[in-house]
Amino acid sequence: MSEYVTIDDIKAAASVLHGVVVHTPLLPFQGDELGNLVYFKPECLQKTGSFKIRGAYNKVNSLSVEQRQRGVITYSSGNHAQGVACAAHLLGCPAIVVMPAKTAQVKIDGTRSWGAEVVFVGDSSEERRLKAEQLAAEYSYAIVPPFDDPYIIAGQGTIGLEVCADLAEFDAIVVPIGGGGLISGIATAVKSLRPDVRVIGVEPEGAADAYHSRQAGHIVEWAKVETIADGLRTQRIGDWNWRQMQKYVDDIVTVSEDEIRAAMRLLARRAHLVAEPSGSVATAAIMGGKAGLRGKRVIAVISGGNADPAFLAEVIVG
Amino acid sequence: MSEYVTIDDIKAAASVLHGVVVHTPLLPFQGDELGNLVYFKPECLQKTGSFKIRGAYNKVNSLSVEQRQRGVITYSSGNHAQGVACAAHLLGCPAIVVMPAKTAQVKIDGTRSWGAEVVFVGDSSEERRLKAEQLAAEYSYAIVPPFDDPYIIAGQGTIGLEVCADLAEFDAIVVPIGGGGLISGIATAVKSLRPDVRVIGVEPEGAADAYHSRQAGHIVEWAKVETIADGLRTQRIGDWNWRQMQKYVDDIVTVSEDEIRAAMRLLARRAHLVAEPSGSVATAAIMGGKAGLRGKRVIAVISGGNADPAFLAEVIVG
Repeated sequence: MSEYVTIDDIKAAASVLHGVVVHTPLLPFQGDELGNLVYFKPECLQKTGSFKIRGAYNKVNSLSVEQRQRGVITYSSGNHAQGVACAAHLLGCPAIVVMPAKTAQVKIDGTRSWGAEVVFVGDSSEERRLKAEQLAAEYSYAIVPPFDDPYIIAGQGTIGLEVCADLAEFDAIVVPIGGGGLISGIATAVKSLRPDVRVIGVEPEGAADAYHSRQAGHIVEWAKVETIADGLRTQRIGDWNWRQMQKYVDDIVTVSEDEIRAAMRLLARRAHLVAEPSGSVATAAIMGGKAGLRGKRVIAVISGGNADPAFLAEVIVG
Repeated sequence: MSEYVTIDDIKAAASVLHGVVVHTPLLPFQGDELGNLVYFKPECLQKTGSFKIRGAYNKVNSLSVEQRQRGVITYSSGNHAQGVACAAHLLGCPAIVVMPAKTAQVKIDGTRSWGAEVVFVGDSSEERRLKAEQLAAEYSYAIVPPFDDPYIIAGQGTIGLEVCADLAEFDAIVVPIGGGGLISGIATAVKSLRPDVRVIGVEPEGAADAYHSRQAGHIVEWAKVETIADGLRTQRIGDWNWRQMQKYVDDIVTVSEDEIRAAMRLLARRAHLVAEPSGSVATAAIMGGKAGLRGKRVIAVISGGNADPAFLAEVIVG
């Protein structure tokens, strides 16, 4: 691939993913909470409960047969771990996932259920990455990074192809930002096919490093991030992601923790979708009328649904 | 229409509903709880939160322009009320809904949000029906019955067309039974297109009048029904429905209240779908290995998602 991920890379990824991932529907939502013309793109209904399978499968599929036989490794406590484990399982490839010792049992079980081996290290993401790199060097595993990779970006971008195929006209698409894998892929696809559509990124106020980076004009790393949206606790967006975002993303907005809870409640009560906090931020931005989105024909990407059951129940009762 | 609803009636309904209802996806589910080959058909993601809009729209659309100008009336406290209200709104037709005085405020609000007028009477379904018939006679409204009607059946049957179009091979489809509108339509479509697929109906043990009717060989009415699945509290299936079911349904099974709760919990936690109790019974039947369904390629129809939030939260924590 060249220095930029292109629409052709994303179309190639779509061919790879055809019949493997769920082509999630666009669900129209009518309600005063959001104005009249919102569509949900529910990746919480995707295999493994999030969009992560798209990029992971596209990446593992890109490896040589020999490399796949040796195996892949990744570092993640969350949805990327399950995405990689599932992709490796489907492609008949051993997978190792480095997780923090304190990971919730449900996430460990979810990853192991796809046959992946789980290795535990300390709590910092730096420790995990170093451990994965050490094991990769020792056993010749291929690393499947969570976001800063052109194949990962192209895989996530297939969501943009799907929405453009499914909806003739819309004004904007709103996308959560963690490390930037999801939005860099979607923005590339949507802006290439529909230059007039606005692409808006959303971060929690407590992890707004991409928002801050955009203001600064260069990547800014946050030493500390704090939010209930555990999938968006990335301290720094990736280099590949930054390049694509600078080219294709129109705006980045932030939402509060209360706005995230309210969106999660609306999705469960009114749209009958279980979204995790990270998956609820795009809806929160529209509810809050951020970036002039109110009353427009807007697509909200619900990135995942792997919420803790006790927290979900608490939020639903509200 | 003739004495039976046919596949052609259902195809005609599909043309009417094209672009109006959501073509809900088939969501593959992998998990030990259900065996390996289950697909959910999530009508909880349908407009108005249940399948009812399909039949209601097809019925209202079949009326003459003069009739539509006078208006439609129905009797329901649940999903059919919202389905009729939405269908009438979309077709520019006044709608009146007769509801029991004790109806939950959220259902009243949902119905009114589509511009329907709500009339309250006492608690018995008989009273509601009589009131609707009296108002229909007085003001020349057309009655939109909840299930015992060929246009309603043909509309619900479009779900069967969709699953046959979306999935090349499957062994069985499992469908909730209240008054029989949903299963009679789906069974007609699926058996006409795929004679080898088994069609299995599911009722709560506390409202198993269709199961009882099947054993008896004629329609049996239950004087009292009791179940958390409020959408399936019908005391007697309809005549049109009975005829179609005798011709096309292979088996009827029952599930306990605990099995319904466990299915609702699984759907929210693992499939990220909010199903109401009535919408969870097909999944419950598969989890319980009823009718030899375990390990087969089975479609579970999730009929609706309009669950009470407090009850939903209680079940999720379980």
